[in-house]
Amino acid sequence: MDNKSFTKHISHRFNEELEEIVNRVMAMGGLVEQQLADALSALIEGDDERGEKVLGTDVEVNALEVALDEDCVHVLARRQPAASDLRLVLAVIKTITDLERIGDEAERIGRMAMHLAEIGRGSEVMTEFEHLGNHVRFMLRGALDAFARMDAEHAVLVAKSDIQADRQYEIIMRGLVERMKESPAEVPRMMDFIWAARALERIGDRACNICEYVIYFVKGKDVRHISVEQMEERVGVKSEVTE
Amino acid sequence: MDNKSFTKHISHRFNEELEEIVNRVMAMGGLVEQQLADALSALIEGDDERGEKVLGTDVEVNALEVALDEDCVHVLARRQPAASDLRLVLAVIKTITDLERIGDEAERIGRMAMHLAEIGRGSEVMTEFEHLGNHVRFMLRGALDAFARMDAEHAVLVAKSDIQADRQYEIIMRGLVERMKESPAEVPRMMDFIWAARALERIGDRACNICEYVIYFVKGKDVRHISVEQMEERVGVKSEVTE
Repeated sequence: MDNKSFTKHISHRFNEELEEIVNRVMAMGGLVEQQLADALSALIEGDDERGEKVLGTDVEVNALEVALDEDCVHVLARRQPAASDLRLVLAVIKTITDLERIGDEAERIGRMAMHLAEIGRGSEVMTEFEHLGNHVRFMLRGALDAFARMDAEHAVLVAKSDIQADRQYEIIMRGLVERMKESPAEVPRMMDFIWAARALERIGDRACNICEYVIYFVKGKDVRHISVEQMEERVGVKSEVTE
Repeated sequence: MDNKSFTKHISHRFNEELEEIVNRVMAMGGLVEQQLADALSALIEGDDERGEKVLGTDVEVNALEVALDEDCVHVLARRQPAASDLRLVLAVIKTITDLERIGDEAERIGRMAMHLAEIGRGSEVMTEFEHLGNHVRFMLRGALDAFARMDAEHAVLVAKSDIQADRQYEIIMRGLVERMKESPAEVPRMMDFIWAARALERIGDRACNICEYVIYFVKGKDVRHISVEQMEERVGVKSEVTE
């Protein structure tokens, strides 16, 4: 079983420094989840205040990334970890890069939402955006859960669900392109939606990256650049996608 | 002076393994540069063969990333490097991630170019694309040169030039949006150009990331999330941007 309690795992094998690092990754993940939630509220409900809030959180997320990165370097230099301890530190270094970039994408969505509020938000493709937004939030939450528990099976499940995000993204894109063809005056406004959709799709991809690092930590196997089927084979599971 | 010969540097302080890793990063960088050059040829000159070539190279680049990552883990586990040796390994781990993603963006441009060849390429904004493309190639080459020589001053110069890439990108975007408004039937075709321009802009950003890792290696200072002026201050240079 991969999904043993991570807390138990680290209390036996990792020192307090590592435990502290993992806790801070989870705190950073929580902040980024909130950024994404705020950005989606700003976009879908036109909640300006939350749009501004997402821009303000960015500084905090960036500072956490830099501080965590430094902590990882200190652990590597002082403790010279090997085997799974080393893999954990490397998984953290990569995870925080993706978390910070997810924050950047959320910021982008927040900025688009505020621009749309200025020029008139409209109600186009909002249902589709809500679907994609919820799915991507579910993926980010799933990736962070998989990270917290170092659960490779759950990580595969989340990575596998990216196909739905890609499908929803394609639907939104087709809708937006059609609308631009029909109402050329709407092109600048539709472009904001296009960048927001693209940002959501990228967040899904980055949640997948985090899942790959979890699998790398648990299984010691690099599962980048392979299909989901190959990933399942390497992890030794056959998971079902649930929506 | 930071720009001492990197070969000299490693022959004194690093073992053969590290030297081999750095050589392979440069080989990977060369491949990715070629991908970008091919993608731009496919887009600007409509050279289909080179479009296909860029797609084919992706497998090789991915494999190099995974292999290099493994090599870095082995070095960390076996040699337990400290100080600048450790910083070098970490700079390599991060650089290859960005190089691989630059390859992905080049692939995206190649795919757009092939799609445009199918639906009729047209000659819009080609001059602007050529400018942006050349500038981004110059940035990638500059970042790799800075990496090869571990030259922090050159890294700042390259990072600083991203402002021109952003400006050229904005000009292209404005042109494409105007064209879509004027000729709505052209929207799907213009979208290909929009994704290609976005990919180029992202490649510029990633070249900047590589520059930041070089500065981190040389100066031991994290220069992410700060302005170019702050970066110059931390590196201790005042560089001029040349085009």
